[in-house]
Amino acid sequence: MEIGLDDVDDLCTGAAFLGAGGGGDPHIGGLMVKEQLRAGRRIEILDPDHLGEDSLIIPTAMMGAPTVLLEKIPSGEEPIEALRRVEEALGRKADATMPTEVGGINSTIPLYVGARLGIPVVDADGQGRAFPELQMETFAINGVPGTPMGIADEKGDSACLTTDDHHRMEWVARGITIRFGGTAYFANYPMSGAQVKRASVKHTLTLARAIGGIIRNARGRGGNPFEELERFIATTSYGVARRIYSGKIVDLDRQTKEGFTLGTVTIDPDTGFGPPCRIKFQNENLVAWAGDEPLAVVPDIIAILDAETAVPITNETLRFGQRVVVMAVGVPEIMRSPAALRQFGPAAFGLEEEYTPLSG
Amino acid sequence: MEIGLDDVDDLCTGAAFLGAGGGGDPHIGGLMVKEQLRAGRRIEILDPDHLGEDSLIIPTAMMGAPTVLLEKIPSGEEPIEALRRVEEALGRKADATMPTEVGGINSTIPLYVGARLGIPVVDADGQGRAFPELQMETFAINGVPGTPMGIADEKGDSACLTTDDHHRMEWVARGITIRFGGTAYFANYPMSGAQVKRASVKHTLTLARAIGGIIRNARGRGGNPFEELERFIATTSYGVARRIYSGKIVDLDRQTKEGFTLGTVTIDPDTGFGPPCRIKFQNENLVAWAGDEPLAVVPDIIAILDAETAVPITNETLRFGQRVVVMAVGVPEIMRSPAALRQFGPAAFGLEEEYTPLSG
Repeated sequence: MEIGLDDVDDLCTGAAFLGAGGGGDPHIGGLMVKEQLRAGRRIEILDPDHLGEDSLIIPTAMMGAPTVLLEKIPSGEEPIEALRRVEEALGRKADATMPTEVGGINSTIPLYVGARLGIPVVDADGQGRAFPELQMETFAINGVPGTPMGIADEKGDSACLTTDDHHRMEWVARGITIRFGGTAYFANYPMSGAQVKRASVKHTLTLARAIGGIIRNARGRGGNPFEELERFIATTSYGVARRIYSGKIVDLDRQTKEGFTLGTVTIDPDTGFGPPCRIKFQNENLVAWAGDEPLAVVPDIIAILDAETAVPITNETLRFGQRVVVMAVGVPEIMRSPAALRQFGPAAFGLEEEYTPLSG
Repeated sequence: MEIGLDDVDDLCTGAAFLGAGGGGDPHIGGLMVKEQLRAGRRIEILDPDHLGEDSLIIPTAMMGAPTVLLEKIPSGEEPIEALRRVEEALGRKADATMPTEVGGINSTIPLYVGARLGIPVVDADGQGRAFPELQMETFAINGVPGTPMGIADEKGDSACLTTDDHHRMEWVARGITIRFGGTAYFANYPMSGAQVKRASVKHTLTLARAIGGIIRNARGRGGNPFEELERFIATTSYGVARRIYSGKIVDLDRQTKEGFTLGTVTIDPDTGFGPPCRIKFQNENLVAWAGDEPLAVVPDIIAILDAETAVPITNETLRFGQRVVVMAVGVPEIMRSPAALRQFGPAAFGLEEEYTPLSG
């Protein structure tokens, strides 16, 4: 299967939806991919179930603060250089790349890398959504070493990091990212095809494209994109999607700190009565409360959507006065195991909320 | 020439003297070297003028806050791993190692590496003293690229950094060091023998050993080590050494911050009258004032010595009530060029003082 010019916008929209407010601006990545397609390059998408057991797959992505990404546009060489650093460390070329997460720019970076290097992109990722930290990966939970990790910036600087600890990989790479200016591009968790089959959340690129298509089509037909999203997601491994709040943004506390975009957004209800909704984020939305009552919590996806069009709003573009619908989405079973919840459940973010999977 | 067990203490003492208060605790490095010698390993010292033009020399050292080094003892594998990362990046084994600076632990790390790997150590360095930042090297001034740079910690984590900018190498490596816990071990500025001959401050290991010997012997004989140091240094490329103050430490502001040991020490005069002496340091002593009048400034060496024994006191072991003599020492000509002063003169540290070379 190939990704064509007509697919890119849908894929970006769907990736921003699954990205839970994070993952970085989807338009920048979309433009990078379109430029490659217009130059005649091709992007082949591979079903993970069809991977050769011994193939080498090197995921590629961007890390840092999405607020910084808006002002520090990539040159395009960074993810290529990051991947090359891993290839050099392994003494072997990648047979394919893939996303580390679904979300904004991080669904498109691997497409760009695939186009540039002429290698296919695997239709799977390691988060089934976006999470803010590198170790929050189904790859990690399933025993895949995180390093050698390549990391590069737009000035041509790069590093190849080695550690046997997933959290220290995140800690040191985040330090490098801060010193690189707040964003960086990386390649890590190099895997065999056998490992991808066992350790990834599958078919998330095509899922993102489908979600983007629903949002675009419902708008064109004057349909209700929220209802259509809920119906469609109920048929997928994510199981359930549900509107949990709608209203107007009345307060926004957003800082760029420690290499992340951190903050809380407050939404007053459409109805004019009842408690306001607060959503706390570390790049991605972590928890939504109505008053003191949790409405949804990680790892479930909390997406803030434009109230008219259902187009997802990433956290760096939230602003006062926006009318929004908040939608929560369940996650696939591989992301709800005890090991998974230790890696990216509420406690991993210092939240006191219990995780109760979203119900329909 | 070989370094034997009897040489190590003198070398450590002299390195601490030339280290201008920085360079890290000399005893830790001395113990590491003695352990190697007692295990039967040998340390061969090579005159830089006898190096083969095409030999590969990879300098090795420790970086970070000397205050942290006291509590975070090296495992010994760190500098070996750092050097290996550079060898891997270059696809070639080192023919020798050498110090990046003279000072405390950083004169002994290359001796340890040489003993462990069975390679000689070049009798030269890139600072002729110790400086706090990586780009403050005669190597840099003379066109030697700083990277590939290997950097490693005691947990087995490591990185190999590539950049074409000396200051960004420092900036990113310092960030990694902070995330590694405040100290790290590194290998950088890989050089040919031809480059070492052109770009280094020569014979500084043997100079450190000679200085340490003078301090030890004068003590034994009841001589005046300060006078003997001044007389001896006048015969070297450093040209001049002079006592600039003596008194008692009455105030000490010392913080571990941004990966450095930063602060100011204040000394009241022996004589009981006249202005106190303040010495400002960033790992190393940068400037000494009597009242508002500068007595000495970087790149000249400012050493704080025990008033009885002339044993140098490194800044992490300064304490209230110590009776000290402050000695200033000139630097060789290669360190006083306009390019050298841009790299490590007063302005490079944000100081407003003009550099006037110390006179006798």
